[in-house]
Amino acid sequence: MTRAHNFGAGPAALPLSVLEEARRELLDWRGTGMSVMELSHRSPVYEGIQEEAERSLRQLLAIPESHAVLFLQGGASLQFTMVPLNLLRTGGSADYVLTGAWSKKAAAEARRQGTVRIAGSTEAESFRRIPRAEELDLDPGADYLHFTTNNTIFGTQWRREPAAPERVPLVADMSSDLLSRPVAIDRYGLIYAGAQKNLGPAGVTVVVVERDLLGRAPEGLATMLAYRAHAAERSMYNTPPTWAIYLLGRVCAWVAALGGAAAMAERNEQKAALLYQRIDRNDFYRGTAEPACRSRMNVTFRLADEGLERELLAEAERAGFVGLKGHRSVGGMRASLYNAVEPASVAALVDFLDDFERRRG
Amino acid sequence: MTRAHNFGAGPAALPLSVLEEARRELLDWRGTGMSVMELSHRSPVYEGIQEEAERSLRQLLAIPESHAVLFLQGGASLQFTMVPLNLLRTGGSADYVLTGAWSKKAAAEARRQGTVRIAGSTEAESFRRIPRAEELDLDPGADYLHFTTNNTIFGTQWRREPAAPERVPLVADMSSDLLSRPVAIDRYGLIYAGAQKNLGPAGVTVVVVERDLLGRAPEGLATMLAYRAHAAERSMYNTPPTWAIYLLGRVCAWVAALGGAAAMAERNEQKAALLYQRIDRNDFYRGTAEPACRSRMNVTFRLADEGLERELLAEAERAGFVGLKGHRSVGGMRASLYNAVEPASVAALVDFLDDFERRRG
Repeated sequence: MTRAHNFGAGPAALPLSVLEEARRELLDWRGTGMSVMELSHRSPVYEGIQEEAERSLRQLLAIPESHAVLFLQGGASLQFTMVPLNLLRTGGSADYVLTGAWSKKAAAEARRQGTVRIAGSTEAESFRRIPRAEELDLDPGADYLHFTTNNTIFGTQWRREPAAPERVPLVADMSSDLLSRPVAIDRYGLIYAGAQKNLGPAGVTVVVVERDLLGRAPEGLATMLAYRAHAAERSMYNTPPTWAIYLLGRVCAWVAALGGAAAMAERNEQKAALLYQRIDRNDFYRGTAEPACRSRMNVTFRLADEGLERELLAEAERAGFVGLKGHRSVGGMRASLYNAVEPASVAALVDFLDDFERRRG
Repeated sequence: MTRAHNFGAGPAALPLSVLEEARRELLDWRGTGMSVMELSHRSPVYEGIQEEAERSLRQLLAIPESHAVLFLQGGASLQFTMVPLNLLRTGGSADYVLTGAWSKKAAAEARRQGTVRIAGSTEAESFRRIPRAEELDLDPGADYLHFTTNNTIFGTQWRREPAAPERVPLVADMSSDLLSRPVAIDRYGLIYAGAQKNLGPAGVTVVVVERDLLGRAPEGLATMLAYRAHAAERSMYNTPPTWAIYLLGRVCAWVAALGGAAAMAERNEQKAALLYQRIDRNDFYRGTAEPACRSRMNVTFRLADEGLERELLAEAERAGFVGLKGHRSVGGMRASLYNAVEPASVAALVDFLDDFERRRG
């Protein structure tokens, strides 16, 4: 088998050793005579799997006991609705910082539930950068402040979270960089992330929420949409996506074996640096994001001669590079460098880009 | 490897051949160099997988083009909320028939969204049976009529769906019997089912909804909670649970190879008959549901001498029978006989019950 160099934006590459482990255990989980997928979620053996996944994630991100860890379904898209349903008070207002398509979607969905104020936006500059601290106009009375840590489409990433006013919980969509680096969890009221970039397969969503915020949701909120119901039942209010949680646990173990979140950040930093250095070497390629705001997760770039891009993408595909086509709103190329993308794949991509330049430059 | 006799209520047994196929393909889906879990949901190769799953399910259940098939997340529990959000009009009322814990939950969640009328209930008889047609008090002006086709906890199942008044869409929770038998889809406005009993692993929910009903949801409804958004995007509005949908497609192929829904119904009928015959043979065991309403999916029974039940369950577990403990609200034993439970497992259980009687009767 030849393994693809998978640079897809998500669902994305998973660690090969985790896939091999999953294959090994698929038919018989540790002598139970059943696949993990066949275990009752109420069985002690499955409960152990889920508890281990939570413990492992808590350890890697140093999540304090003040915060609950939830394994939900519906991806970030459902969180766009659950966040305001749970945290936006009647008559209240929430601040949203717009840094790309996903934060715009988050704000649009929140607006269906209540009042949304735009506390900052770089849309006028085609989201090429993250707003500077002094550009933010924060409401000290906001029910929460929402931002998106990494912008997959535009290839930008916050270097440091915005400083929320006192008593304003900071809420972050970390779908594309949770577990790719350490996070100061105690600065956040709520973090959410679909798993399918850095954490595991599609089908499970991680929510880390300050327990003090759980009481804020209105009485009549649908049980499945209330964080407090899931927190009270330790994500077992209804049948959880057992296989996805099992794999998330295995991915956490893999990250731990590589040295944890800090080691992962270093590895990701190095991968991104290698590719950005190649892009910056001369004018044949050019990055689309402002250098100071460049993402370590999604490297967006174009050819000086945009007419060659189609050819580059076709050649790349034939050479075993997958998922390099940029989002239509930016065009060109995008290489997503999530946790499980191997440094060797990035090196191979750099070689390919060199070679393409030699032949067509 | 000794394969367990898995009688769990769900997540439940999956067909061994499907698990073997999943294992074979886990690292490399048909020469792509990627696991199905690593494929972008926007890639033609994954789109093909999802389209095949839908086509296959449509064929097996003869789902007409008048109905959309959606692959969602959140299980039946989220449907308890999505159904009223989409179908219950302002000032309208919905009829619910109560036949067990799950239909009660469905009604309770609907009540958070609007007016609910109880159109029938057998709670006074501890849900031992399904209401008779003449016992139902149906509102001809209801926005919809909701019922639960099979009751996992109480071991009862409707033989035939209630006849909804003209222009009242029939809505059914078929979480525990969809694909276990043919269904006259055109009698239904909406059907929903978590996959983890008969269709696949936990993490995907099937919704079959009449397209004519899609316009009924209010304008401002959250996009992720609106069926029409998912129908318009063919369940790709957000990242779907790709692995679970892939497996659902493989389970459908397995059902098709066994002869389809009618053949599956016959197989399930035979499995259930074998076990009920054993239970009815004498007074050592006794079924808890009224015979005319007995479920083919969940066989609930007790020992005449209830004091022996704990011993029976412990012995069963040692002998490789999994998931036989009845729900605490009924007690005793429950054998779930979903599609993937092999007739040989049921035969082995009958032998075990015979043997237990010989030794302790």
